[in-house]
Amino acid sequence: MVNDGSCLSNLQCVMNIDAEGYDQVESGAVTTGASVLVEGIVVSSQGSKQKVELKVARLVTIGKSDPLTYPIQKKRVTREFLRTIAHLRPRTNTFGAVTRVRNALAYATHKFFQENGFVWISSPIITASDCEGAGEQFCVTTLIPNTREGTDCLINAIPTSKDGKIDWSQDFFGRPAFLTVSGQLNAETYASALCDMIEPELAFADLNDDMACATAYLQYVVKYILENCKEDMDFFNTWIEKGIINRLNDVVEKDFVQLTYSDAVELLLGAKKKFEFPVKWGLDLQSEHERYITEVAYAGRPVIIRDYPKEIKAFYMRQNDDGKTVAAMDLLVPRVGELIGGSQREERLEYLGSRLEELNLNKDSYWWYLDLRRFGSAGSRMEFLVDFAAVLPVSVPHAGFGLGFERLVQFATGIENIRDAIPFPRTPGSADF
Amino acid sequence: MVNDGSCLSNLQCVMNIDAEGYDQVESGAVTTGASVLVEGIVVSSQGSKQKVELKVARLVTIGKSDPLTYPIQKKRVTREFLRTIAHLRPRTNTFGAVTRVRNALAYATHKFFQENGFVWISSPIITASDCEGAGEQFCVTTLIPNTREGTDCLINAIPTSKDGKIDWSQDFFGRPAFLTVSGQLNAETYASALCDMIEPELAFADLNDDMACATAYLQYVVKYILENCKEDMDFFNTWIEKGIINRLNDVVEKDFVQLTYSDAVELLLGAKKKFEFPVKWGLDLQSEHERYITEVAYAGRPVIIRDYPKEIKAFYMRQNDDGKTVAAMDLLVPRVGELIGGSQREERLEYLGSRLEELNLNKDSYWWYLDLRRFGSAGSRMEFLVDFAAVLPVSVPHAGFGLGFERLVQFATGIENIRDAIPFPRTPGSADF
Repeated sequence: MVNDGSCLSNLQCVMNIDAEGYDQVESGAVTTGASVLVEGIVVSSQGSKQKVELKVARLVTIGKSDPLTYPIQKKRVTREFLRTIAHLRPRTNTFGAVTRVRNALAYATHKFFQENGFVWISSPIITASDCEGAGEQFCVTTLIPNTREGTDCLINAIPTSKDGKIDWSQDFFGRPAFLTVSGQLNAETYASALCDMIEPELAFADLNDDMACATAYLQYVVKYILENCKEDMDFFNTWIEKGIINRLNDVVEKDFVQLTYSDAVELLLGAKKKFEFPVKWGLDLQSEHERYITEVAYAGRPVIIRDYPKEIKAFYMRQNDDGKTVAAMDLLVPRVGELIGGSQREERLEYLGSRLEELNLNKDSYWWYLDLRRFGSAGSRMEFLVDFAAVLPVSVPHAGFGLGFERLVQFATGIENIRDAIPFPRTPGSADF
Repeated sequence: MVNDGSCLSNLQCVMNIDAEGYDQVESGAVTTGASVLVEGIVVSSQGSKQKVELKVARLVTIGKSDPLTYPIQKKRVTREFLRTIAHLRPRTNTFGAVTRVRNALAYATHKFFQENGFVWISSPIITASDCEGAGEQFCVTTLIPNTREGTDCLINAIPTSKDGKIDWSQDFFGRPAFLTVSGQLNAETYASALCDMIEPELAFADLNDDMACATAYLQYVVKYILENCKEDMDFFNTWIEKGIINRLNDVVEKDFVQLTYSDAVELLLGAKKKFEFPVKWGLDLQSEHERYITEVAYAGRPVIIRDYPKEIKAFYMRQNDDGKTVAAMDLLVPRVGELIGGSQREERLEYLGSRLEELNLNKDSYWWYLDLRRFGSAGSRMEFLVDFAAVLPVSVPHAGFGLGFERLVQFATGIENIRDAIPFPRTPGSADF
């Protein structure tokens, strides 16, 4: 059985040991994992499992694979073990299929947004201004000398001022810098100049436009893999999650559920199920609550929850007229939970300024973000503007969303652990490969 | 003149001051940079500059733009100044056009590789094993507490062992970790399992296949923007670099020059031009040398130089039979210099091991990379295998290349400074926006 990695199916290669080329076979070299050159003639297969097979005239081993040390033999191996050999696991059926579907989801993402007139920009991975608050975890610095493992990294070599504080002026960027958690604020600047951008940011759009875009996007990419990755999806349906194809067909064909956060809380309070975490207006929804909503209350359809309490959401989300909630939305799916999170952005300068102050964020470092609320904008959206004319806002309404791409891979393949949905995951204590 | 960011051209909007809707215009509010809602009827234009114009029935200002503080007025501003307002510069003609062409180049890149059967993988941005040697610049760490600007970052709070060395075991990854400079080694692991990958890595391929792929890629993306970004390319041709369209047409239509490093050195030694840096076999080519080759010796065509001395190239490149050079290639273009760099990878375990030792690299941290030379591989390439059968290698030959995407944007738009080819550049002393 020979596989070239392009699809799940193997090519059955049948060799007549009396054939002329047999003396070119190094006996015993064709082991699991070895690379071979085979030449021969494609013929109708005698067996029922495949239509054709290769009648081999010549077989040459190109890369050997010692059966005593090659870690992936035909017997089943655990996912946990495969994570320790992430450089070899794409050679298994499961990870080969995940890789191809992941690739198709990525390409479908590009296609969807390009076909809908969005422009892609690259946003920085290093930032000095924090978008969501979680970005201060990973500091990016050139202050630590001799960082190669095994060499001396003496703490005294880090530059400090006289009072023992780190002297950031000597760091590469002249101040503390971090890995970012989002390119949203950057995308907003471009959406305010050139209309729709990806990561998804829509100019002249409100939360309804945002939810419609997220829905159309998810339906498009799911349809794309159902049509373009049939063999791999059949594999997942048989071996990884029974029924996944039906579930994904429902996503493409049925309307998504929309309900407000307040209605979701009512629904949970009325549920017969006992929850571990409290349900109360103002508290964030826990995983068990999201699962109840997507797997029990509205099984079979993605659910969009909107209008969350402002206290549990980020500073840039637009405040609703009730004074308590913001125009935020989470798109939830069974098992995975939040797949997409988005919001209408606060376009009113004074509201935005107040929120930054309430949250003790450094207003000065957001000067450029606030500028977007000071100075007009380009972009257009015909439908929106017609509805909108009566409202007369103070700057340009816009909205966008973010997607957990690895969660999408989990959702589309049935793979349970997110560490198996990304080629080389980075986790606490591990940056191997 | 109204522009919605979707293209360079403005829409001329003509307003009759006696029209019914005029009283809805806030006098003076329609300033440079302001956002407006216009409703009206598209009519044939009286002027010669455009075919149609809008006869305005209603005009509403959506976002104001104070002419006293809005920094981009109609007068010309310098690129240096625009870099200080990177959040507003996409509103200029030049940066709008660069953004659209950059987007088209990125999408064409995805299209080319998908149409040719490549599979995209995401490779980690954080690494503990260094590919090219430059990756140790930026350390990614959670060891520095209270990193927010303006708070106390006391050096004594960084954990150390008793002898004053930084205690990496307490860092997030349990050892020093860095921003990577390349995903190549990771891409090789997947190319060894599933054939061709992007970033571009071709299984069962040698340097000639690699050069052919790089050539076809560059011609594809350049053709794509010439066909899909006509208005923006005309803008660059008129305002940024005269003749750029002809130059790009040559790239699409003419064969690329191929010559060896040794021939390039001979060519430079025979040149009448006096160079600032010495020309000698074994020394790397400097910018002035590359410019002479691409702008004087072979003006009008990209040049691929191959077979560089092994001392000036990375450890993973395949050693040629001469014992002195490696199967590396650089694709050079006028003005920008190296656009693409690639190589055939060393597939022979003992050669690779020796190079790691010669360069004092930590062999243990490359165990997984060396595994690819121990254990077979999938993938296929019909033409290659037929040529190849007589050679009987010890593992799977493969090759790949990397592209400087911002350099491609410079090359395709004529933009001189690389800081203007990326939305939010990160530079020494600056991580703004």
